[in-house]
Amino acid sequence: MSHNSFGHLFRFTTWGESHGPALGVVVDGCPPGLEISEAEIQAYLDRRKPGTSKFVTQRREPDAVRVLSGVMPKPLVDETEPDDSTTLITTGTPISMMIENKDQRSKDYGEIRRQYRPGHADFAYDAKYGIRDYRGGGRSSARETAARVAAGAIARKVLEASFPMVKIRAAMVGMGTQSIDRTNWDWDEVNRNPFFMPDAQAVGRWETYLEEVRKAGSSVGALIEVQAQGIPAGLGAPVYGKLDQDIASALMSINAVKGVEIGNGMEAASLTGEENADEIRMGADGQPEFLSNNSGGVLGGISNGDTIVARFAVKPTSSILTERRSIDADGQEVDVRTKGRHDPCVGIRAVPIAEAMMACVLADHWLRHRGQVGW
Amino acid sequence: MSHNSFGHLFRFTTWGESHGPALGVVVDGCPPGLEISEAEIQAYLDRRKPGTSKFVTQRREPDAVRVLSGVMPKPLVDETEPDDSTTLITTGTPISMMIENKDQRSKDYGEIRRQYRPGHADFAYDAKYGIRDYRGGGRSSARETAARVAAGAIARKVLEASFPMVKIRAAMVGMGTQSIDRTNWDWDEVNRNPFFMPDAQAVGRWETYLEEVRKAGSSVGALIEVQAQGIPAGLGAPVYGKLDQDIASALMSINAVKGVEIGNGMEAASLTGEENADEIRMGADGQPEFLSNNSGGVLGGISNGDTIVARFAVKPTSSILTERRSIDADGQEVDVRTKGRHDPCVGIRAVPIAEAMMACVLADHWLRHRGQVGW
Amino acid sequence: MSHNSFGHLFRFTTWGESHGPALGVVVDGCPPGLEISEAEIQAYLDRRKPGTSKFVTQRREPDAVRVLSGVMPKPLVDETEPDDSTTLITTGTPISMMIENKDQRSKDYGEIRRQYRPGHADFAYDAKYGIRDYRGGGRSSARETAARVAAGAIARKVLEASFPMVKIRAAMVGMGTQSIDRTNWDWDEVNRNPFFMPDAQAVGRWETYLEEVRKAGSSVGALIEVQAQGIPAGLGAPVYGKLDQDIASALMSINAVKGVEIGNGMEAASLTGEENADEIRMGADGQPEFLSNNSGGVLGGISNGDTIVARFAVKPTSSILTERRSIDADGQEVDVRTKGRHDPCVGIRAVPIAEAMMACVLADHWLRHRGQVGW
Amino acid sequence: MSHNSFGHLFRFTTWGESHGPALGVVVDGCPPGLEISEAEIQAYLDRRKPGTSKFVTQRREPDAVRVLSGVMPKPLVDETEPDDSTTLITTGTPISMMIENKDQRSKDYGEIRRQYRPGHADFAYDAKYGIRDYRGGGRSSARETAARVAAGAIARKVLEASFPMVKIRAAMVGMGTQSIDRTNWDWDEVNRNPFFMPDAQAVGRWETYLEEVRKAGSSVGALIEVQAQGIPAGLGAPVYGKLDQDIASALMSINAVKGVEIGNGMEAASLTGEENADEIRMGADGQPEFLSNNSGGVLGGISNGDTIVARFAVKPTSSILTERRSIDADGQEVDVRTKGRHDPCVGIRAVPIAEAMMACVLADHWLRHRGQVGW
Repeated sequence: MSHNSFGHLFRFTTWGESHGPALGVVVDGCPPGLEISEAEIQAYLDRRKPGTSKFVTQRREPDAVRVLSGVMPKPLVDETEPDDSTTLITTGTPISMMIENKDQRSKDYGEIRRQYRPGHADFAYDAKYGIRDYRGGGRSSARETAARVAAGAIARKVLEASFPMVKIRAAMVGMGTQSIDRTNWDWDEVNRNPFFMPDAQAVGRWETYLEEVRKAGSSVGALIEVQAQGIPAGLGAPVYGKLDQDIASALMSINAVKGVEIGNGMEAASLTGEENADEIRMGADGQPEFLSNNSGGVLGGISNGDTIVARFAVKPTSSILTERRSIDADGQEVDVRTKGRHDPCVGIRAVPIAEAMMACVLADHWLRHRGQVGW
Repeated sequence: MSHNSFGHLFRFTTWGESHGPALGVVVDGCPPGLEISEAEIQAYLDRRKPGTSKFVTQRREPDAVRVLSGVMPKPLVDETEPDDSTTLITTGTPISMMIENKDQRSKDYGEIRRQYRPGHADFAYDAKYGIRDYRGGGRSSARETAARVAAGAIARKVLEASFPMVKIRAAMVGMGTQSIDRTNWDWDEVNRNPFFMPDAQAVGRWETYLEEVRKAGSSVGALIEVQAQGIPAGLGAPVYGKLDQDIASALMSINAVKGVEIGNGMEAASLTGEENADEIRMGADGQPEFLSNNSGGVLGGISNGDTIVARFAVKPTSSILTERRSIDADGQEVDVRTKGRHDPCVGIRAVPIAEAMMACVLADHWLRHRGQVGW
Repeated sequence: MSHNSFGHLFRFTTWGESHGPALGVVVDGCPPGLEISEAEIQAYLDRRKPGTSKFVTQRREPDAVRVLSGVMPKPLVDETEPDDSTTLITTGTPISMMIENKDQRSKDYGEIRRQYRPGHADFAYDAKYGIRDYRGGGRSSARETAARVAAGAIARKVLEASFPMVKIRAAMVGMGTQSIDRTNWDWDEVNRNPFFMPDAQAVGRWETYLEEVRKAGSSVGALIEVQAQGIPAGLGAPVYGKLDQDIASALMSINAVKGVEIGNGMEAASLTGEENADEIRMGADGQPEFLSNNSGGVLGGISNGDTIVARFAVKPTSSILTERRSIDADGQEVDVRTKGRHDPCVGIRAVPIAEAMMACVLADHWLRHRGQVGW
Repeated sequence: MSHNSFGHLFRFTTWGESHGPALGVVVDGCPPGLEISEAEIQAYLDRRKPGTSKFVTQRREPDAVRVLSGVMPKPLVDETEPDDSTTLITTGTPISMMIENKDQRSKDYGEIRRQYRPGHADFAYDAKYGIRDYRGGGRSSARETAARVAAGAIARKVLEASFPMVKIRAAMVGMGTQSIDRTNWDWDEVNRNPFFMPDAQAVGRWETYLEEVRKAGSSVGALIEVQAQGIPAGLGAPVYGKLDQDIASALMSINAVKGVEIGNGMEAASLTGEENADEIRMGADGQPEFLSNNSGGVLGGISNGDTIVARFAVKPTSSILTERRSIDADGQEVDVRTKGRHDPCVGIRAVPIAEAMMACVLADHWLRHRGQVGW
C-alpha cells in the first residue's frame, strides 16, 4: 500500500500538513556506510524553498532539515584525527528527517474553510474523508514536497556510491506562452535565473511575462524536463515494474502535474517506425551508442544506458485573485477568490522536486536490480 | 514489490512469454459473491486478440480463457431450478486465468536471437539479465496484455457491483498523421471500425492511410483516450496513492506507451489559472456540476465525480521491414530487418487494454477507499 | 517491503535509535473522523515507559508523545461551544508521532563499542551493515517499542469505532521459574502489580523472586498472554494473509521474543482430533458458541468470533553483570560484562507492547476485510 | 498486500482450490541464469504428495508439475553439444508452475456442504465471504501446499547459487504422545520412514501408535523442526523485517500450525540470562563460533551464521470419524462426522512444506539483503 509511501527497497514515507507544527519523511532501506551531512541535504531544500524570488510564494520558511535517525557521526579511523562532527554516516536503519513549519498564517484561509476553490483538492478531500484540514491546503499543500527533496538527497548518495558519474538535473523548458530555444541549452544557466531555465537569452522575456502574470493576480502552467545521465543499462523490470512506469508515477504524484512524457512522449503517436526507433552503433569507448534518443533511455521498461529523459506539465495554480464560480460545503453557490500567499508559477519549484523524485526512482530500481541480479 | 503485479487490494499478477505454452493472470482480493462467466471475460479478450483485421498481427490465437480457481458454480437457490453451469460466482479467493499459446512460430525469430532490434527491449533485457527469451519477444511481447484484459473483466464486475452506472470506454483518437473531429464522437462507432475510432467520417481516410503503411512494411504510432463515467467523488488518496498517479502508472506500463495525460494534460503547461480551473455550480440533480473538465475528473489525486479522462501515446512498433542499423550480442554492427508477424499500428489493440487497466486501477482504489473510509 | 513498516491498510513505520535525539512512528491509512487526544496515547505510553518500578530499567524517560500531523482540532458544531482544544480528530492523512529521548548516557556503552555482547544483536548488525550504532543498542534497543505503543493507541480507536465492545488486554503468565494459578485470573489485578500479572496471590512470590534476580545482576525470561475480545468472525484471509500468521509475525517482531502460540499452541502437537477441535452449539444470544477455545479464536486463518488468544515467550535480556565469553570486532576473544541500565525482566514491558501489536494487526485486518468484502 | 502472496523480492503467489481443475504458483523476482529441471521440482513434490503411505490421505494425485513460464531451454554453448532439453534456465521473469487436480471426489463432501465441521475453517469462511467452496475444503485445503513446495524448489536454487553449502532440512520430532531421542538424530533416517523422523529406534513404536490412531478414525498432532545450515551472518532486517519474524509468519501460514519457536523457543521464558545467551569464541576456521545455539541462529532479527532452527506444532486434523457437536449454515445444531479421505497425522506432510517455506524466507531475505547492502 502506498498512500503516503513511495518506492520498494529504497522506500520513503512522508507526513505533515501545511499549517501543522512540522512535516517530514522517513527513508527506509538506505544502504549503510554512506557519508552525508545535513548541509548537503539543506542545499537541495534551499533550491525548493519558498520566498527566494518574487515569482514564488512569499511564505517565509527556512525549511531547516533535522536528521533524527539512521545515521551516526562518522567513526574516526584514527583517534587523533580532528572530530568532524558534521559528517554523518548512514547505518542502514530508517532515516527520519523533519522540517518545522514556521510561517503558518492560518487566518488567511478562514474564508475558504467551507468553500471549494475551483481547481483545488478541497471538494475532493471533503467528498472522500468528510473532513478536511483547510488551513493552507492541509496535506494537499505543496509543502509536502520539501520532504521529497530531502529523500532525494539521500537517493543521490545511493546512486553516487555506485555510479560516480551520475547526474540528475531538471530545467523548466516552457511556461505559459513562453518557450526556449533548445540550441541555447546551458545547464549552468539553470541556477542563474529564477526559473531554473537553461536558455540565457530567454530569461528577460520570461521575467517580463511572469511579472505581468503576477501583477494580474493570475498564474501560469509550466513544462519541465528532467534528465538522468550516467545510469547503466539494466535498471527497471518488465511489465509492472517498468522504469518509465515508475518515473511516470513519481512525476504524476507531484502536485498539479497533468501529463508525463518519456523520451519523445506524446509526439511518438504521430511518427512511423522508421522515424521513431533509435539506431545503434558501437561507440568509440566500446559501448553501444544510440544514434538518437527518442526512447528517453528506456526500452521495454529497462534502462538502455542512454540519458533518461522525462518531461511533465504542471498546471497553473488555481489560487488566483479573479473571482471564480463555485459551491460551498452546504451546496450553496458562491464566488471564490483566493487571497493567501501563492506562486504565480508553481512549476518553478517543481524543478528541484522532479530531480528528487527521479533520484528516488532510480535509487529504488538500482537496489531492486542489485537484489535480483546481483550486480 | 511489483515486478509483475499491479494494484494493492485488487491485485493481479501476470506471467507468460510470447512463445511459451501459455500465459495467465492471478487476480487476488476480488470481493466474493460476484457473478461472472467465462463468456463475458472472453468477449473482452476477443476485442484484443490478434488476427481480427489486416491491420493487426496475423498471428492466429483463439485466446481462449480458462478460469482455474476462485470461483464456483452459482449455488442454486431452489434445487428444482435448472442448473446454469456457465454462471460462476466469485468466492473471494484468488482467480487464476490461463490462455494457451497456439500459434507460436519461433523459427521466424531465429535470426534475431543474437541481434538487437532497434527500438525493442532486446538490448535492455540482455543488459539486465544476461539472458533473454528471444522467441517472439519473450516476456516483452504484447501477448502479456491478454492477461490484463482478463483481469480487467473481473475489475469491471467489482465496480459494477457498487456503481451500476459505471462505463469504462476507450477510443483511438489519433494515428500517425491522422486525427479525428471530436464533434463527430460516437461511442457506438468505436466498435464498428477496425481502429476502435469514434469518428465515422474519418474511417475511410484512416483505412487508406494505414493500408499504405502496412504495405510499406512500416508502422505508425497512435493516440488513445480512455474515459470512466459513473465513478463517485472520493476515490484516490493523497500524495503517493493519487488516482491519477496510478492511472499514469497503469497506462505507462502498457507496452510502447511513451506519454500519459490526465484531463487537458500537457496543454495545462501553457494555460493561465483562469483558463484552467474548472468552475463548479449545483446541477439540476442536486449534485455539484463542473462547468468544464480540464481536471480529467481528478483533483489533488482524488476523483471529483466528473468523467475521468486520460490519454496516452503509443509509439510505432519497431518491427518494420526496413533495414535499420544496430549491433548484436557480440558488439558487432549489423543491419536488422524484422520479418516476424506484427502490427502496423500496435496502438489499435491498446484500446481494450487501456480500458482493462483503467478498470483495474479504479477497482483497486474503490476497495482501498472502502477499507479506509468505510463506504 | 517492510524493514521498518508493519501492516497494509493500517500501516505504520517506526524510526529512531536508543541514543538519538528522538524516535517516532508514522501511521498511514487511519480512517478519518476518529476522536483522539494526546493524553489518551500518553496513557498507553506511560504503561510501557522505563523507570516505573525497580524491576524495569532505571533510564528516566518521560516518553512524552507529540502528534505532529494527520489530525486537526475537533471542529466546533456550534461556535458558542467552548473550545475543547485537546480533542483531536483524524483527517485520514498520515499521523506522525514523536517522542524525544531525554536520558541518553552513551558513555555507559563506550566499552562495548567494539565488543559483541553474547545474546545481543551486536555481532549480527556488524555482520550485516559493517557499521553499528553501539550507543544503547541503537536501532535494536527496546526504545523502538514506544513507537509501537503509540501506533497501537490509534489502532484501538479504529477498532472501537466499529466494534465498541472490543477489549485488547495482555498479562504476564510466567516469569522464569514462576507461574500463575489461572483460576485466580483477575484482569483488574493486572494493573495493580509491577508485573502486569493477573494472579493477586502470586504477586508476593514473584516480587521476592525477581528481587533476587535483580540483586544478582541476572535476568529472567517471561511468558505473556494477549487476548482480544469482541472481534467479529470474518477477519483474516486465507493462505498468506492469515490472521494468526500476522499475529505471530507481530509478536515475533517484538525484541527478545523466541516463541509464539495461538490458542493451545505447542500443546496441539500432542493432542488427538477429538481432544483438540472446539465443538459448536448455538448460544442463548442466537450466535454460535464454541464450547472450548483451543483454536484461540482463529480457524483457517480467519477469526471465528471467539476470544483471540496468543502467547509468547520473551527471553531473558543478555545484559547481565556476570562475565560471558565473547569476541570483539577484531576477532579477539574477550569477556563481556554489561554495565548499562537494563531490565531484570524485559518481558514486563512487553505486556503493553503486545497489546499494541495485537491492536494494529486487528485494525489492519478489519480495514482489509472491509475493503474486500464491504462490511 | 499479501492475501495469497508471500515474500518481497523473491515473491510467490499461489492459487487453486482442492477440487478445482488445478492449482499453481507464480514465483516473481527469481534471479536469471539459474539452471533447473522439472524433475528436480517434481522430486520435492513427490515427498509431499498424498497416497505415499497408509498414514497420509489416500487421495491419488500424481502432483505432476508443469513449468509454464520464466524459463527457457539452456542455450547451447557449442552447437555440436547434444541438446539437453530438460535443463531449463531461469530468465528473471515470473515462473508459473501448475499442478492439475486428478482425483477430486466432490460427492464425498455433499453432506457437509452446509455443515460446519468443528475445528475446520468452514464456519469462518462463511462468516467472512458469505460463500464457501465446500468441496474438499476449497482454498483452505492442504492441497495449496503443493504450490509452496514448488516455490521452495526454486528458492533452494537461489540460495545454492550463492551459498553452495546451504542445507535446509526438516524432520518430525514429536507426534501425539510420541517423542524422539535426539541423541539418535540421523538425517539419513528421515527419508527412510513414513514420518520424516530422525530416530531409527523410534520408528516401530511410532508406526504402532499411528496405526491405532488411524484405525480408530482419529488423528494426532505433530511437532516439526526445520533447520537451515550454511546461511551467512547478516540476513534479516531490524524491527519489522526480522528474519525470525518472517520465519514465524511463514510457518504459521501453513495449515493447522498453532505455535512456532525459534531456537529454544517457549523454553526461553523460564531461563536466566546466564543460561540463555550463547557465548562466542573464535573457531578453528577463523570464524566466530557460538558455544550453544539457544538463539536458533538469529540475533536481533538478523542471522548470526549459526544453524537456523525453528520448530512448530501442527494440530490434529479435525476430519475424524467420531461425531462432534456443531451447527449448520441455518444455525441448526447438528452432529458432524467427516467421511472424506484424510490424514491421521497431517503433520507428516508438513515436513517438506516447512523446508519449502524456510527456503523461500531465506531466498527473499538474501535478495533483500543484497539489494540494500550489496553483497
